Amino acid sequence: MGSSFGHLFRITTFGESHGGGVGVVIDGCPPRLSLDLEAVQADLDRRRPGQSRLTTPRQEADRAEVLSGLFEGRTLGTPIAMLVRNKDPRPSAYEHMRDLYRPSHADYTYDAKYGIRNWQGGGRASARETIGRVAGGAVARQVLAEAGAGEIVAWVSQVHHVDADVDASTVTREQVDAHITRCPDANASEEMIRRIDAARRDGDSLGGVVTCVARGVPAGLGEPVFHKLEADFAAALLSLPACKGFEIGSGFAGTRLSGIEHNDAFYSESGRIRTRTNRSGGVQGGISNGEDIVLRAAFKPTATIHKRQETVTTAGDSVPLEAEGRHDPCVLPRAVPMVEAMVALVLCDHFLRQRALVGGG
Amino acid sequence: MGSSFGHLFRITTFGESHGGGVGVVIDGCPPRLSLDLEAVQADLDRRRPGQSRLTTPRQEADRAEVLSGLFEGRTLGTPIAMLVRNKDPRPSAYEHMRDLYRPSHADYTYDAKYGIRNWQGGGRASARETIGRVAGGAVARQVLAEAGAGEIVAWVSQVHHVDADVDASTVTREQVDAHITRCPDANASEEMIRRIDAARRDGDSLGGVVTCVARGVPAGLGEPVFHKLEADFAAALLSLPACKGFEIGSGFAGTRLSGIEHNDAFYSESGRIRTRTNRSGGVQGGISNGEDIVLRAAFKPTATIHKRQETVTTAGDSVPLEAEGRHDPCVLPRAVPMVEAMVALVLCDHFLRQRALVGGG
Amino acid sequence: MGSSFGHLFRITTFGESHGGGVGVVIDGCPPRLSLDLEAVQADLDRRRPGQSRLTTPRQEADRAEVLSGLFEGRTLGTPIAMLVRNKDPRPSAYEHMRDLYRPSHADYTYDAKYGIRNWQGGGRASARETIGRVAGGAVARQVLAEAGAGEIVAWVSQVHHVDADVDASTVTREQVDAHITRCPDANASEEMIRRIDAARRDGDSLGGVVTCVARGVPAGLGEPVFHKLEADFAAALLSLPACKGFEIGSGFAGTRLSGIEHNDAFYSESGRIRTRTNRSGGVQGGISNGEDIVLRAAFKPTATIHKRQETVTTAGDSVPLEAEGRHDPCVLPRAVPMVEAMVALVLCDHFLRQRALVGGG
Amino acid sequence: MGSSFGHLFRITTFGESHGGGVGVVIDGCPPRLSLDLEAVQADLDRRRPGQSRLTTPRQEADRAEVLSGLFEGRTLGTPIAMLVRNKDPRPSAYEHMRDLYRPSHADYTYDAKYGIRNWQGGGRASARETIGRVAGGAVARQVLAEAGAGEIVAWVSQVHHVDADVDASTVTREQVDAHITRCPDANASEEMIRRIDAARRDGDSLGGVVTCVARGVPAGLGEPVFHKLEADFAAALLSLPACKGFEIGSGFAGTRLSGIEHNDAFYSESGRIRTRTNRSGGVQGGISNGEDIVLRAAFKPTATIHKRQETVTTAGDSVPLEAEGRHDPCVLPRAVPMVEAMVALVLCDHFLRQRALVGGG
Repeated sequence: MGSSFGHLFRITTFGESHGGGVGVVIDGCPPRLSLDLEAVQADLDRRRPGQSRLTTPRQEADRAEVLSGLFEGRTLGTPIAMLVRNKDPRPSAYEHMRDLYRPSHADYTYDAKYGIRNWQGGGRASARETIGRVAGGAVARQVLAEAGAGEIVAWVSQVHHVDADVDASTVTREQVDAHITRCPDANASEEMIRRIDAARRDGDSLGGVVTCVARGVPAGLGEPVFHKLEADFAAALLSLPACKGFEIGSGFAGTRLSGIEHNDAFYSESGRIRTRTNRSGGVQGGISNGEDIVLRAAFKPTATIHKRQETVTTAGDSVPLEAEGRHDPCVLPRAVPMVEAMVALVLCDHFLRQRALVGGG
Repeated sequence: MGSSFGHLFRITTFGESHGGGVGVVIDGCPPRLSLDLEAVQADLDRRRPGQSRLTTPRQEADRAEVLSGLFEGRTLGTPIAMLVRNKDPRPSAYEHMRDLYRPSHADYTYDAKYGIRNWQGGGRASARETIGRVAGGAVARQVLAEAGAGEIVAWVSQVHHVDADVDASTVTREQVDAHITRCPDANASEEMIRRIDAARRDGDSLGGVVTCVARGVPAGLGEPVFHKLEADFAAALLSLPACKGFEIGSGFAGTRLSGIEHNDAFYSESGRIRTRTNRSGGVQGGISNGEDIVLRAAFKPTATIHKRQETVTTAGDSVPLEAEGRHDPCVLPRAVPMVEAMVALVLCDHFLRQRALVGGG
Repeated sequence: MGSSFGHLFRITTFGESHGGGVGVVIDGCPPRLSLDLEAVQADLDRRRPGQSRLTTPRQEADRAEVLSGLFEGRTLGTPIAMLVRNKDPRPSAYEHMRDLYRPSHADYTYDAKYGIRNWQGGGRASARETIGRVAGGAVARQVLAEAGAGEIVAWVSQVHHVDADVDASTVTREQVDAHITRCPDANASEEMIRRIDAARRDGDSLGGVVTCVARGVPAGLGEPVFHKLEADFAAALLSLPACKGFEIGSGFAGTRLSGIEHNDAFYSESGRIRTRTNRSGGVQGGISNGEDIVLRAAFKPTATIHKRQETVTTAGDSVPLEAEGRHDPCVLPRAVPMVEAMVALVLCDHFLRQRALVGGG
Repeated sequence: MGSSFGHLFRITTFGESHGGGVGVVIDGCPPRLSLDLEAVQADLDRRRPGQSRLTTPRQEADRAEVLSGLFEGRTLGTPIAMLVRNKDPRPSAYEHMRDLYRPSHADYTYDAKYGIRNWQGGGRASARETIGRVAGGAVARQVLAEAGAGEIVAWVSQVHHVDADVDASTVTREQVDAHITRCPDANASEEMIRRIDAARRDGDSLGGVVTCVARGVPAGLGEPVFHKLEADFAAALLSLPACKGFEIGSGFAGTRLSGIEHNDAFYSESGRIRTRTNRSGGVQGGISNGEDIVLRAAFKPTATIHKRQETVTTAGDSVPLEAEGRHDPCVLPRAVPMVEAMVALVLCDHFLRQRALVGGG
């Protein structure tokens, strides 16, 4: 059951980094939506490796083929299956690692869990699995857009020690994509590039933070207990490879404030109830309040590096590792469309749930 | 569907803070477990208000009645239902707030979602809903204990600006409960008490962080994609009232490290594969690796304060609020058993999933 | 996971025949419904034993207490928990059967599954478990009624060799309840009573068929593949104790017709598309077509009889059984509200799913 | 959510009869199983049209491509995706039917549900959708076989008025496949062939019954309430196209027996507890008792016939229909592998659930 996400708008992903291909089945998409497949492909292109000098040189066209669920450009209400073939597998690059465990990869834990592992690549732990998510998220975003239920923008807000200054209430995808870092703060972006270039040269890698805003989400989405919006967002983002932390609104910093400093005062604006501040991050009691939803996801530095490391073989013998093969010094720019996809999936699911509960268009 | 949590070991909670009572149905508990009901009640006692001078004075005995699922002290494999009556409702204390929205509470969002709200209390947003979780978590912990699949200890590691220094690998529940703060660092605990007392006198409230460790969890629990252990933990903790952030292992701080600094080197110890460091927090690729699982959850300062605040009526008119009624200046000590319960529920569910997948005792 | 039914409108039942009580948590009920609790209780009264001379003499008032989810008579959108205490447990009546397996009961299979069994009663296999279903179904029926999405009537259409003649398109609950058999065909009912009385005197039991119609269900409910309406109905009815068969529309008899005899011709009536015949039973391709939905459920004769039977002890030794205790010679009259409840639950769930998919009131 | 079936062993099917293809994602398959892909293909071949003169002449090779989840012939524990391309679409054959509703097909109900329909074929209502189920069921059968948890054989036991006489306790797949009818009673098979040939010539169609036995299923599978084995079997079989009825054990005929005639006496055989008769059909209280599980599924005559019928256009105008295109006069032989697949899926899911609950190999 681990390969499905969502309830009413549900994706099921399949595929490993090496094998026939990866893909997704999107179940529960409302019918009669004119699906913009170019927009879906554009999101896949933003996710794929090799799109800029910052990312891994692995070259995959990542063209999605739609296998079902569409008729004359519109959704049928039936499952939309999409398939992306694996085009550039190089198992030989992994040959020397078949009998050892790469530090901070999933090699060892896969063996512990399954007793078998495809050593020719990262398996389901590969970022390649996220292709299906990004495709599903792109469809979810279109459902939300048609319903006027929110728009989603994510960006790189931190790489290593470089922090960006970005206005969540106005930033656009165009501003984000104007930088290969996907950090719309030009100065920070320049510094990030310098550090990422240095890490690449050094065979090292860097982590950072992706921030995401969902604007225009109607009040009332989310459920009060186990499917609080923030709970579903947290699960969504922590399910991304390399994600180690999540915050909504004031997050960890908010724990340093007192109640009077933290509470968001209500006021009325043109008949709509608003909050003066937004430390709640757009969600109160697990339910959206109509303010901007603001999330942050922490990504650790990529585990694949070219420096010498200590590790063990599958037999438990000590052995040094100097990885060859591809090396992505900073996954953050590519994590941006992944984060957006997961946020869109959660919102779309809750939008449909709310429609089930109280009706509406 | 929002009131159920877990798949194979699943709890369904019910009840509002004001009404007949709150409770839980625990489904999927393995049969023939000698259930220690005193241990369940002990966890409920750790959760309830009024247990020390630090918490809300609301007095509820919170005695759990087991309605089903047990026979001669052992579990039957059928649903275990537990009920805790509401004993101390004081709707009159809320009378003056029936037509206004308390800042940073769920009043407004409940109205936006449901179009109706029980103004006599916090409804499902009340911490009282967590009684069912704590009861369910106490059962889950016993399942894990019997299977030798892990022990869980949580503690308060930060209140406002006070940070504690605690060794996650050795800290015990006894050490935690030796302090009314549930912070086992005596010096930090003293300072926390001072600040919480000051906040109470001031009608203000404080937030903080609960850290939780699960030791002795076998390698192989968790799923590689959407039900990564950390994803389920994140959902579990973010579903608790007032939780705004989650970290596992190095978390947000890990984003300031480079790959070579962050990776956990493998080594072999008495035939068991271990890691030299534990920045992964016991989980790699979503699956436990046998090291300590270390989590952190951020709790904002409680929204209920006695200071004057700006808000609006349900009709949208501006109105000042000076809350009366109960006031819990710091929810952190009571959040400790809640965090433990949610972590136990996640681990127990994954323990049973793994047993389904590959068999075993 | 076995104790929950439904997706968007979901019930979770708990409780054994002997123990604290039985009940249900109803999750996903739309908010602001003025819930008629007397109607819920009336359904429970129709289900309970002892209501006529035809049923088991076990006397239980079966008063449902609502623990949560209501405020001032209206639903809150939060879980509605209901509890019915067990009032008339007589474990001593089962004492002599603690170490043997009653034929065609669940005693042996419970032991095989769980390795433990409450021998003081039927456990979860008891018809008493259906109290929670009937309560949940009564709420579902009110949701459907308020939405104008269908009314449900079931009746006893066969007992042993006695077949009734009833017009499914017009029969009312009043007509059904005018007979203690719940068979609205007066002649058949008289004959059924004679046979049931004879079976009681003889220590034997009789089975039969309950037919159920749902009228006024809008076209478009149901899903085309695994959640075809008839698939969900079949699961719902086969989950009732003693149910061994299910038919929709022409059912097994339809297999004796040819295609041209079986197909339902379409025609147009006042702008609405209708079928001339209804061998489809109101469902085509898994989706309602607006015609009456007609279902039949077969119930075997009750396993509890007072005749001498061959069986074995838990140790496997041969032993004769002459059951004492209660004896319900024909469960059919009481099965009527159970069938209605399950049908209502399925329809309500699909009504909400359809609203999620395409919106609407 | 309608496109997924099962909980721990879960399939998600996708695809329409016309479009890129159909397929399945199998999630939850235990790792390290040496998957016999030829056996999977053999089941697909038994399902596909054109395999004998009795079935529709549509010619599809139906070769399954495995996209993921396998490594060196063994399962990885990750999702197994399989794709079968659509090779013989002939939308022109449907052109004349695009604006009318074929009687007893899903055309009208799809429009009622979705407001859109791919008129070029049967969409998800096509028997072609069952390719994914049969592939998934073939994998499930191998899981069961490896675990020694049961073998499944189905056959055609009735076509129109011809009833077969078959011994469920001994019949083999080889005996079934020795007849193009898949009826292992030679005399009945001959007569069935005559009737099916006559129906084909006449442009008419015939229905019938498939019986299925699962032998060697361990006692203890199934859950006592909503996921009784028979409830899951009923849902599984009623989800197949054209299925209108379900029975387990004595079924509808059992309603004509009295309790003493119906109860299955227990006895002990070589230390194993058995029943003298098997009117329970191998399931008591929803849980397997170790006896043969015997099920029957009723299939109505195929809706596609070549006789003149009354219908309406999508605008509601009366219009005669004389269907052209393919015509399968009797779906029963092809339904046999579908029934086996669904039964295997249910058993495999419950086998894993039971392993989760009580452990074991």
